Amino acid sequence: MPFIENLQDAWTRNNSLLCVGLDPDVGRLPAHLRGKPDAIFEFCKGIVDATADLVCAFKPQIAYFAGASAEAQLEALIDHIHTNHPNLPVILDAKRGDIGATASHYAREAFERYRADAVTVNPYMGFDSVEPFLGYPDHGIIVLCRTSNPGGSDLQNLSIVGGRKLYQHVAELVAKKWNRKGQVALVVGATFPAELADVRGIVSDLPLLVPGIGAQGGDVQATVMAGKSTSGAGLIINSSRAILYAGQGEDFAAAARSAALSLRDEINRYR
Amino acid sequence: MPFIENLQDAWTRNNSLLCVGLDPDVGRLPAHLRGKPDAIFEFCKGIVDATADLVCAFKPQIAYFAGASAEAQLEALIDHIHTNHPNLPVILDAKRGDIGATASHYAREAFERYRADAVTVNPYMGFDSVEPFLGYPDHGIIVLCRTSNPGGSDLQNLSIVGGRKLYQHVAELVAKKWNRKGQVALVVGATFPAELADVRGIVSDLPLLVPGIGAQGGDVQATVMAGKSTSGAGLIINSSRAILYAGQGEDFAAAARSAALSLRDEINRYR
Repeated sequence: MPFIENLQDAWTRNNSLLCVGLDPDVGRLPAHLRGKPDAIFEFCKGIVDATADLVCAFKPQIAYFAGASAEAQLEALIDHIHTNHPNLPVILDAKRGDIGATASHYAREAFERYRADAVTVNPYMGFDSVEPFLGYPDHGIIVLCRTSNPGGSDLQNLSIVGGRKLYQHVAELVAKKWNRKGQVALVVGATFPAELADVRGIVSDLPLLVPGIGAQGGDVQATVMAGKSTSGAGLIINSSRAILYAGQGEDFAAAARSAALSLRDEINRYR
Repeated sequence: MPFIENLQDAWTRNNSLLCVGLDPDVGRLPAHLRGKPDAIFEFCKGIVDATADLVCAFKPQIAYFAGASAEAQLEALIDHIHTNHPNLPVILDAKRGDIGATASHYAREAFERYRADAVTVNPYMGFDSVEPFLGYPDHGIIVLCRTSNPGGSDLQNLSIVGGRKLYQHVAELVAKKWNRKGQVALVVGATFPAELADVRGIVSDLPLLVPGIGAQGGDVQATVMAGKSTSGAGLIINSSRAILYAGQGEDFAAAARSAALSLRDEINRYR
């Protein structure tokens, strides 16, 4: 099923706009898992199985796997999600961007090797750096627009001639020109609700992946009010650390479920 | 030795501004290597050993390894370069960029796992996405500024309020603010010599990594004239496909050496 339809189904089926980000920091794993050969996989599997009925997507962050030489565990994790939680989209957070010939290898990495349903990409190198990903018509391409980190303002908030800021230009460019086959979404951080509302106004009902809730300080009510689509959905609200590390011990998965349930329901109060 | 000094030594020692880009496309390897378990490593090793005295750096492109599940071959390749061609810097072309907590894992990937001397990064997410890389003081951080691909103009050439284009702003920001410890360089494509000259004027003698010669159409004379520093160096001029695939058969390494020698000498004519 195409990524966007899959996502829409998951929004409805699980009554959830919540995405759990899988950022497994080996230094923060529960003590009983540390040192095991498949500790990263086991940890993420525990989180996934405990929260799969509460989310609209999972978002593994590839940096945490690459920094730990754990590509095989990432492959196993995504395979586990597809096998045990079918129709739940997997977004590979990789933020890739390169010239076309190279980007086609990154597209292969994301969609053929890891079998992700969607991938995040960086727009700085322009359309041909995104085009090879668009060649996979059933897959989602989620382009960075306005990011939630402090340095996000350095470039994205520059005013460009014509009256717009760079992130607004990117939102329009992506929604109106790059999204030729309806498979594109945008990353817009939760730390600036006014800018989230602004992007929503530019891109109509395009799905927005929203990091920055929780550890990064974004407010749930303001985020949902600013970002929801006309149907009260349209958002993939990511939380990583606040869910992954809700518990520290052998009950980490139950603690993660509890944190995810609470955040899902809080989000739903404002839809 | 710090990356920048290492690079300066290599410029002098090998009388070369040439960087060979290691972009091993499994579909284009010589027939006698195809299908071998370490074909990518063997191919790149052949290129490296045949050209090491003619270059100032090697630049493996991680996408080609990741798309082929060949991380172990990339590790072995960089280890081979460090062992057999000491003091020749290895630039990992990865174009990473993410929030600080995640970028620290990408820095670990580049500098601890792969033991690259420098890495390319994307500036779209701002200073804190680059900062974790700067925490490795002996390593180089090469920030995308003006790229050589057609879509490079989509964002990088936007005029920002105050009279500059985005790539000019990035050049100034990186050279004047981000380069706190003298370990930073910029990527500026060869396809727009006037813009290369422009960046050179903004950043003084900062090293510039220049892709786009050869397959992408950049002119050698125009590139060197526009980009060289006051000392007639300052450039890391990358060529990948024109050298890697100069020969198609068992003589691929000799053909690569011949192509590299010719390009090095052509570059030197205009310094």
